[in-house]
Amino acid sequence: MTGPTPERARSHRDQRQRARPLYPPAVPFIERAIPPYEMLDEEALIAVERHADLILQEVGMEIRGDGRAISLWKQAGADIEGESRVRVPSGLAREIVKRSAPAAFVQHARNPARSVTVGGRATVFAPAYGPPFVSDAEHGRRYATLEDFRNFVKLAYLTPWLHHSGGTVCEPTDIAVNKRHLDMLYAHMTLSDKAFMGSVTTAARAQDSIEMCRILFGADFVDRHCVILGNVNVNSPLVLDGEASRVIRTYAAANQAPVCVPFILGGAMGPVTTAGGLAQCFAEAVFCVALGQLERPGSPVILGNFLSSMSLKSGAPTFGTPEPPLAYFAIGQLARRLGVPLRCGGNLCASKLPDAQAAYESASSMWPAFLAGANFILHSAGWLEAGLVMSYEKFVMDVEQCGALHVVGRGLVLDDNGFALDAFREVGPGNHFLGSAHTMRNYETAFFDFELSDNNSFEQWTQEGSHDIVWRANRKWKSLLESYRAPPLDPAKEEALSAFIAERKASLPDVNY
Amino acid sequence: MTGPTPERARSHRDQRQRARPLYPPAVPFIERAIPPYEMLDEEALIAVERHADLILQEVGMEIRGDGRAISLWKQAGADIEGESRVRVPSGLAREIVKRSAPAAFVQHARNPARSVTVGGRATVFAPAYGPPFVSDAEHGRRYATLEDFRNFVKLAYLTPWLHHSGGTVCEPTDIAVNKRHLDMLYAHMTLSDKAFMGSVTTAARAQDSIEMCRILFGADFVDRHCVILGNVNVNSPLVLDGEASRVIRTYAAANQAPVCVPFILGGAMGPVTTAGGLAQCFAEAVFCVALGQLERPGSPVILGNFLSSMSLKSGAPTFGTPEPPLAYFAIGQLARRLGVPLRCGGNLCASKLPDAQAAYESASSMWPAFLAGANFILHSAGWLEAGLVMSYEKFVMDVEQCGALHVVGRGLVLDDNGFALDAFREVGPGNHFLGSAHTMRNYETAFFDFELSDNNSFEQWTQEGSHDIVWRANRKWKSLLESYRAPPLDPAKEEALSAFIAERKASLPDVNY
Repeated sequence: MTGPTPERARSHRDQRQRARPLYPPAVPFIERAIPPYEMLDEEALIAVERHADLILQEVGMEIRGDGRAISLWKQAGADIEGESRVRVPSGLAREIVKRSAPAAFVQHARNPARSVTVGGRATVFAPAYGPPFVSDAEHGRRYATLEDFRNFVKLAYLTPWLHHSGGTVCEPTDIAVNKRHLDMLYAHMTLSDKAFMGSVTTAARAQDSIEMCRILFGADFVDRHCVILGNVNVNSPLVLDGEASRVIRTYAAANQAPVCVPFILGGAMGPVTTAGGLAQCFAEAVFCVALGQLERPGSPVILGNFLSSMSLKSGAPTFGTPEPPLAYFAIGQLARRLGVPLRCGGNLCASKLPDAQAAYESASSMWPAFLAGANFILHSAGWLEAGLVMSYEKFVMDVEQCGALHVVGRGLVLDDNGFALDAFREVGPGNHFLGSAHTMRNYETAFFDFELSDNNSFEQWTQEGSHDIVWRANRKWKSLLESYRAPPLDPAKEEALSAFIAERKASLPDVNY
Repeated sequence: MTGPTPERARSHRDQRQRARPLYPPAVPFIERAIPPYEMLDEEALIAVERHADLILQEVGMEIRGDGRAISLWKQAGADIEGESRVRVPSGLAREIVKRSAPAAFVQHARNPARSVTVGGRATVFAPAYGPPFVSDAEHGRRYATLEDFRNFVKLAYLTPWLHHSGGTVCEPTDIAVNKRHLDMLYAHMTLSDKAFMGSVTTAARAQDSIEMCRILFGADFVDRHCVILGNVNVNSPLVLDGEASRVIRTYAAANQAPVCVPFILGGAMGPVTTAGGLAQCFAEAVFCVALGQLERPGSPVILGNFLSSMSLKSGAPTFGTPEPPLAYFAIGQLARRLGVPLRCGGNLCASKLPDAQAAYESASSMWPAFLAGANFILHSAGWLEAGLVMSYEKFVMDVEQCGALHVVGRGLVLDDNGFALDAFREVGPGNHFLGSAHTMRNYETAFFDFELSDNNSFEQWTQEGSHDIVWRANRKWKSLLESYRAPPLDPAKEEALSAFIAERKASLPDVNY
């Protein structure tokens, strides 16, 4: 036998692929060189702030069953009616935030090269969060398991275009509800070395999440640095149940970052008009961010935003519609005025399949979020069916779109090489640039290369089987998972984490709430 | 029989559908209430202008075989080398444009209610242009015929979200090349009452197009008003063949609007770096716009822009990549500084199918074009396979995306009804807005309603056949075509047009170039 064996041929191909420089270079997070889109003028921004203030002052928020949160607001100067209604004098909530909330912070990863900055010109992409189901092209839609969870942590680890491991990338429904946070965190901590999110379903589970971080990072380090985020949904409209407020306070007290997210489906949890939803969203988020600052001034925090419209036919939530982008652009400006990092939704969609509906919807959500200057974009990859499903194929498709946004964020490079005057002088009118010195010099890093897109001729594409992008995405996630190798972790830490989990699991009966 | 007959039931449903107000209301064109995205600062814009000037001054453009164009440039102050090379002193081309080109103009439709403004804050959506093939879900990809052409004119007429009938919506390949422009214009003029585009393949065919407009609108009216656009591609890099320059002059001389479009595939007809492609694109477009102004100062004109990147694997053109959007944003600013209307590409894609690849690519092209402030967005609907194919399904899918952008363009409505304070006062914390007076008042016009999107539950969607969006799009375009009724046209004009076409056809042998 003279020719290369299949293994050797593959190894050569792998080397070639490794040899080609990645464009744009993989980075721990995006530092946008382009400005955000400024949609509203000063007068309009003040009008939104004023209406958010009016909501907090006239109607107020309810905090149900968290006496400490109520008393923090009382001390801060809010009017408390009964046991739960908090009416905030105009401007006070924003004042509290401005006084102490950091405009940007670093969330540390266990691999320091992967720590992310949240705020300012930085943008961090994290995978989808929360789906109870998964789907793939061969096996369809099914309940997610811990095995699926581990797969998505691995996939997020493997891609250069997601900067964050996320949180509940899918619900491991084969584990008891009151214990699954332990397995999820263990997966994030051991299978990836990117930054991650902790549990928010109860204050005790948030505390467990922070305890595990103390094992991984050291207790002192955790007290001084942000190492975990907790994504807390407001019970919109205008309610924080005691669990949600305690979870915000638990993260803040530990100097970790709650992500405070009103979840507003216009027409149900908020008004049907976008300006009203925006004002409500801002009011609720500022109220929660302020609560964290009252618990521990200066603790890191992210102002969240999740607005969706509603199908007029069925009342179902819709995504990729034109109303939320307008709110994204506005809330980006409001967050910058307030001086806090912003979370927006990412590749959101309502489609049941990773088809054109899903892609139109996703891009029509992701582009506005990115141009709005969002700092932390949750749901950047995998989200399908209004968030009920984490799709293997959509995940790798979305990831490439995230990669392309790295190029957009870098902006135009207006130097001599970028302007290429030497190429025009060399080539002149009517000739082509293929062989010019400038092209040769820049060829390999000139354009973002979508691996899943087919740009071949119709004839070649037909010969290769006339496949759509889902077919290619199916092969891609499988080959990625095959290539996975775990990042090294100190065995002593791994043992300590395992011991903590075993002890916690033994101390609790399985329950499913 | 007591129940409604099927016909009566359908008629009732039609009435209900007609009764529901269209949201947003159909408009002859979009008047953007949101500002364009300003990506570059003043210094950067000046740098691009300076490099475009340098290209025109140092390298220059060639005009091959059009003595009058050369002499117009000579009189204007350019240096002419040999018979064809035109070197333009720095800043002169922009000066010529600024001196006389209108910042906005009205293109009149034969139905005055459908006339479009091109320029300023207006955005006009027109269908895809140029594909030799069509495709649909049942019959696949095939050469386009006049029947297909007529179908797409009807579809563009029927949708409220395209403002323009376009030009070569597909190539009627069953008609001789030198005669098909006559049939295409006849279709635009008789099957639709929206504004349209004329032939640009030769100056004689451009002249035919204008002659037919004189029959339709009256010769006096045509001399004083813009009624037709001609989309002229530069032979990039830096060449105008004599036919292209004569076509530009033909439209300008008749006070009609040439759309001057450099067609640059980075790495082939331009450098691989985006800044260089941008400077070239601006230089070529300004040169052509200026030529029209030299022919007839004050004549209407559109500055075009078509940049695409290249697959590193195959050299094929790619679309929906992140490099062109950066150029769109920049050229939007440059066009505004220059004071001329801008054309950008629309729902462009390279995919062979209307799948998620096509949709990601399209949205990643359309969103930036729209936010860049483009005034005339050609290829807004139907474009597939790098422009080789006009797809029936993609057409109706894209059209809905255009509809959604009407809402984006309207911006946030920041009035009392928009802010909905009365709803918050009525509903209060923890309750829902479904039955509130504010919701009842705004429900029907609250959200853009994507007819082709499925937002139903998984169970309902499964029961209905688990269809993707292509299946729904297939039904949609067929039912649209079934509903088509031609807009009335004075029979005398129709006869005169037919007579003109018959006479022109009889005077020429069929040729296919």
